[in-house]
Amino acid sequence: MMQTGLIHPSNPGCFYYLPVALRSLEKLVRLIDEEMHAIGGQKVDMPALCSAELWKKSGRWELMGKEMFRLLDRHNGEYCLGPTHEEAVTELFASQTTMSYKKLPLLLYQVTRKFRDEQKPKFGLLRGREFYMKDMYSFDINEEAALHTYNSVCQAYGRIFDRLHLKWVQVQADTGNIGGTLSHEFQLPADIGEDKLLVCGNCGFSANIETLEPGQAECSQCQTGKLTESRGIEVGHTFYLGTKYSQAFKALFVNASNVPAVAEMGCFGLGVTRILAASIEVMSTEDAIRWPGLIAPYQVCVLPPKKGSKAHEATLKAEELAQSLGNSLPNLKGEVVLDDRTQMTIGKRLKDAKILGYPFVVVVGQTALDDLASFEVVCQQSGETLFLSKDGLVDLLSTVETI
Amino acid sequence: MMQTGLIHPSNPGCFYYLPVALRSLEKLVRLIDEEMHAIGGQKVDMPALCSAELWKKSGRWELMGKEMFRLLDRHNGEYCLGPTHEEAVTELFASQTTMSYKKLPLLLYQVTRKFRDEQKPKFGLLRGREFYMKDMYSFDINEEAALHTYNSVCQAYGRIFDRLHLKWVQVQADTGNIGGTLSHEFQLPADIGEDKLLVCGNCGFSANIETLEPGQAECSQCQTGKLTESRGIEVGHTFYLGTKYSQAFKALFVNASNVPAVAEMGCFGLGVTRILAASIEVMSTEDAIRWPGLIAPYQVCVLPPKKGSKAHEATLKAEELAQSLGNSLPNLKGEVVLDDRTQMTIGKRLKDAKILGYPFVVVVGQTALDDLASFEVVCQQSGETLFLSKDGLVDLLSTVETI
Repeated sequence: MMQTGLIHPSNPGCFYYLPVALRSLEKLVRLIDEEMHAIGGQKVDMPALCSAELWKKSGRWELMGKEMFRLLDRHNGEYCLGPTHEEAVTELFASQTTMSYKKLPLLLYQVTRKFRDEQKPKFGLLRGREFYMKDMYSFDINEEAALHTYNSVCQAYGRIFDRLHLKWVQVQADTGNIGGTLSHEFQLPADIGEDKLLVCGNCGFSANIETLEPGQAECSQCQTGKLTESRGIEVGHTFYLGTKYSQAFKALFVNASNVPAVAEMGCFGLGVTRILAASIEVMSTEDAIRWPGLIAPYQVCVLPPKKGSKAHEATLKAEELAQSLGNSLPNLKGEVVLDDRTQMTIGKRLKDAKILGYPFVVVVGQTALDDLASFEVVCQQSGETLFLSKDGLVDLLSTVETI
Repeated sequence: MMQTGLIHPSNPGCFYYLPVALRSLEKLVRLIDEEMHAIGGQKVDMPALCSAELWKKSGRWELMGKEMFRLLDRHNGEYCLGPTHEEAVTELFASQTTMSYKKLPLLLYQVTRKFRDEQKPKFGLLRGREFYMKDMYSFDINEEAALHTYNSVCQAYGRIFDRLHLKWVQVQADTGNIGGTLSHEFQLPADIGEDKLLVCGNCGFSANIETLEPGQAECSQCQTGKLTESRGIEVGHTFYLGTKYSQAFKALFVNASNVPAVAEMGCFGLGVTRILAASIEVMSTEDAIRWPGLIAPYQVCVLPPKKGSKAHEATLKAEELAQSLGNSLPNLKGEVVLDDRTQMTIGKRLKDAKILGYPFVVVVGQTALDDLASFEVVCQQSGETLFLSKDGLVDLLSTVETI
């Protein structure tokens, strides 16, 4: 195994994802895939290399300034590395001739690396220059349908955070250089968050402070509640775009009267690597990493006793247990790790297991050899330690959700 | 659904992967993951942005010439877009302090986009400028161990092509600008292939023509056989690197005598999007796409009859069938498509199904309503048409391998 570790810095704002972190990242992508498919999303994959021509068409080639990585190819063609793909996806839609209104809404999404030349990359994966983002783009027949799609995607985002057992809040947001007329951010409340949020104590209205008047203390929605400031980490951002891009790229469909019409668009981002980093940030304690259970790299770590004269039988028992859990419980296939570094004490390995954040650590000691075998089970999410029979252990672990 | 289609051109040598092709690509990645894990491979993910510093250290910053995309960041730092990652992975290995010989061999791999500024991108995905590659890098304690690893990876490559039912040949190859002393290519024999191969009729020795003397007609291995020329598409390339990179980057491990030693390396590439394109190329016929069964985007397409007075019951039957196959056969979960465009004739939809390359097309007509219901099953891989009872159909489809 690589030395324990999740990421390793490369150049500023760029990281190597080590095997354990990548496993978690891939689970998160599967979760996102599930929820995007559930609302009719179709997965595509667009090039990172985007020609300047497309970005000039939308007017964003100049607008993006230094935040965009730019380069020339061998023929002096101008390109950027896509920080986002409104231009590309709208061009793709426009290329599909005679798109019937019956095929809309069309929801295309991808999970790919995005590039942003941040002035000061910081906080590890939270503000990098190369990172994974899920970006979805919607095409609808009119504003009403587009807003319906907008709400449907927002609900899917809520379900993703709920399934990760993360506290989240959807706040009114600025449309920035993406454009459009309606926008929300999905924020994970956290003291280290870069974003300042204001939440109404009366009606629950929430907004990024950027969207409000300076010094505003009263809620603009209910007109009565007081706004309280807190901080958050932005992990998702949704935009109702209207026809800003579809007009420029002539992204047309044929409507029910058989007449070409301009599609109404939305775009919806999730910071995939940022969700990973932010969830560890908000859930972990000083001496233990905690992952959202569903995307923990491995669910169970089994610890045989330290090498020694009396340990042989218990070691075999531990190996047997690790194998049988992985084989007999379909949800745990590939999810059980045996830490066979038996030259180390149980205590030292238990500490390592905490650092890696296995939701369940099973210590196999002398009591595992009793007629009524019992196992010590450390549940890292709840902090509890249980002593369970084999059947009790299987019952507990059979309920673990995996993806 | 997006209009039927697999890829759509973006800028030269760059493509949008549409939903159907992406499904196949993701299956191919799962297959590769399985075989890489089976030989102890650990998956990582390295940045596309590579600093010039690394490439200057290996001496390849100049060597790569115009084939490498180069760019400056906002602080005028020089970068390239990784066409391959020997430098990056060796730097990563070197950063792991006190790597014990007990942890070797270490096999790290990734499946990511690579970038090459080809003079003339051509043949669609076969020679693109942005494409998916699986690249594995091995670290061993000595030459003997490194060659053992080399063979183990070559065997895994063979298994991958075998599981795809592709004809392949492993040929002696040139080490090019990667370097090292031993190299093989994995080629799919194909008339449209860009590579010229020479195969010995006596001993089976095979080589890329680049590695032999001009005009050489006799086998250099058995000294007796005649060499016959054929063509192939290169889909994999393996290199025994020795210490070319590990020396330059001080990629050290601590050996059994507790002394730091330089790791022996290998590197192993598979052109993921190229395998996809090449396998369609070599398997398809003029009027039908054929995928390797294991990575066909969907396994089964069910066709209800054309809309009409007598069709109602058979349509319900088709819907029921599509659902029950997907639910009752675990291997077909998510693999069954119902083509409910019932305004179109069976013939027209059958033609579309051929173009998309479903391995099995099930036509549900009037005979499906008989007491002994029978279904017409078009097996696209073999070209056969079968008439099967429901049980016969389930038996046939339960044997379909999926991933």
